[in-house]
Amino acid sequence: MTRVIFVGERPVDAVPADDRGLAYGDGLFETMRSHRGELPWWEAHWARLAAGAARLGLPLPARALVREVASTLLDLGDGVLKLLVTRGVGTRGYAPAAGTEPTWVLSTHPLPGAPRPGGLHLRWCETRLSHQPRLAGLKHCNRLEQVLARGEWPAPGEPGGDAFDEGLLLDVQGDVAGAIAANVFVSVDGRWCTPPVELCGVAGTCRAWLLNEAGAIERRLAPADVESADAVVLCNAVRGILPVARLGARAWPPHDAVVALSRQFAAAHPAFAGLE
Amino acid sequence: MTRVIFVGERPVDAVPADDRGLAYGDGLFETMRSHRGELPWWEAHWARLAAGAARLGLPLPARALVREVASTLLDLGDGVLKLLVTRGVGTRGYAPAAGTEPTWVLSTHPLPGAPRPGGLHLRWCETRLSHQPRLAGLKHCNRLEQVLARGEWPAPGEPGGDAFDEGLLLDVQGDVAGAIAANVFVSVDGRWCTPPVELCGVAGTCRAWLLNEAGAIERRLAPADVESADAVVLCNAVRGILPVARLGARAWPPHDAVVALSRQFAAAHPAFAGLE
Repeated sequence: MTRVIFVGERPVDAVPADDRGLAYGDGLFETMRSHRGELPWWEAHWARLAAGAARLGLPLPARALVREVASTLLDLGDGVLKLLVTRGVGTRGYAPAAGTEPTWVLSTHPLPGAPRPGGLHLRWCETRLSHQPRLAGLKHCNRLEQVLARGEWPAPGEPGGDAFDEGLLLDVQGDVAGAIAANVFVSVDGRWCTPPVELCGVAGTCRAWLLNEAGAIERRLAPADVESADAVVLCNAVRGILPVARLGARAWPPHDAVVALSRQFAAAHPAFAGLE
Repeated sequence: MTRVIFVGERPVDAVPADDRGLAYGDGLFETMRSHRGELPWWEAHWARLAAGAARLGLPLPARALVREVASTLLDLGDGVLKLLVTRGVGTRGYAPAAGTEPTWVLSTHPLPGAPRPGGLHLRWCETRLSHQPRLAGLKHCNRLEQVLARGEWPAPGEPGGDAFDEGLLLDVQGDVAGAIAANVFVSVDGRWCTPPVELCGVAGTCRAWLLNEAGAIERRLAPADVESADAVVLCNAVRGILPVARLGARAWPPHDAVVALSRQFAAAHPAFAGLE
């Protein structure tokens, strides 16, 4: 693991202890898959980061500098690159002062292990996502809901931690919101559907690809819509498209729609070529 | 300003860059008023912190160590002491691993300036608080809603930043939730009332004192209940009880109920004695 920390254009040894990212979760992050030293979806990640920064009034570091520093970290080839950007140091209190310099952290991480053979095992989480239109869709650093949801079963490596690979979340209204660290797509009547992200959830980059390039649509989904779907997949930018094999009592055998989708995705994103 | 940082029982130079407080806002904080080198409400602050840590499954540092370190910082007498506790360093991902060592930061800050003579000027915020029963009441570090709300007018010291002293927040349902960094109490029919904190908001220590010691009660409040109240005050542990003079078109003259409440509070908390 390699990590570099900057305040504005200046490399620093540590994140300032009075950083607003630490005090308030006042920041955004992107988790990118690197492939042969490249970032195939860099454009999409930066575009989402910039859109989030505009919504929060957050300062951004210079894009070219971030990309250049990222390049120096990617020598090892395939892995995960995380970019965290905070509003930087402020005075005590919530007021977001104008003109702060952003703190940003780039870190590399190994690829996650191979997914469970045959498909993921999911559970329904009891924690529900709140509705907050001003934050919905953003990959912001206020993630206690996800921490609580993932805390409903043991962490990976602890006894029982492997019983489930992911959890599905409902929102406060009882609609399906997504998985804890991924978006969910269900195949209904031959069409891939995913919940909207206007009230909660994250507008994932892989999700955007499925909507823009693979004919998927947004649709409100009840838990029964998932349980009765022909096929279910999770997706995110690091792991790509992951077939779901089990959710509670429901089991899904391999499905042609998942194979076709994975093939189309692999053709579009070089890191996933040859894996489908 | 003085600041010390610990991981568990060990003093460190900086907050770890992979701390979960920074990544996810996975932590809690307390903001305490120090008076003549003492922390008059230490017990109440620690009790709230411990209750929050229990709800989040967060590890806590040893209470005696925190109190001892705090003592070494309080030589200057009157001021503000902030304690931040995070879940510490974890692996990438939301799962809260068992047995992490908490990161904690103690910092001293000067007292805020004197409140506006005659009473605070408030505004209604457009940002609404979401309903999340699993986090409601806690002083956790997921504070983007408060940052967005306070960002609705310029920061203190910027042009227009002093037009308002605080903002009142509604929840997603349209009920009054509180102020951005304080609880709100309104006098209705001779009784002080404050909104419940089961769905959103913070269970402030000063709020608890008003409920337990001054006969105040919890009640759902509509915006009109505030605007038509006989008197309105904000309160928090640093500033005590602050009379409100204006909210939009409504103005409140000084009120006997506020004087009586401030006097009772000053008798109970030595930092506010002689100020009423």
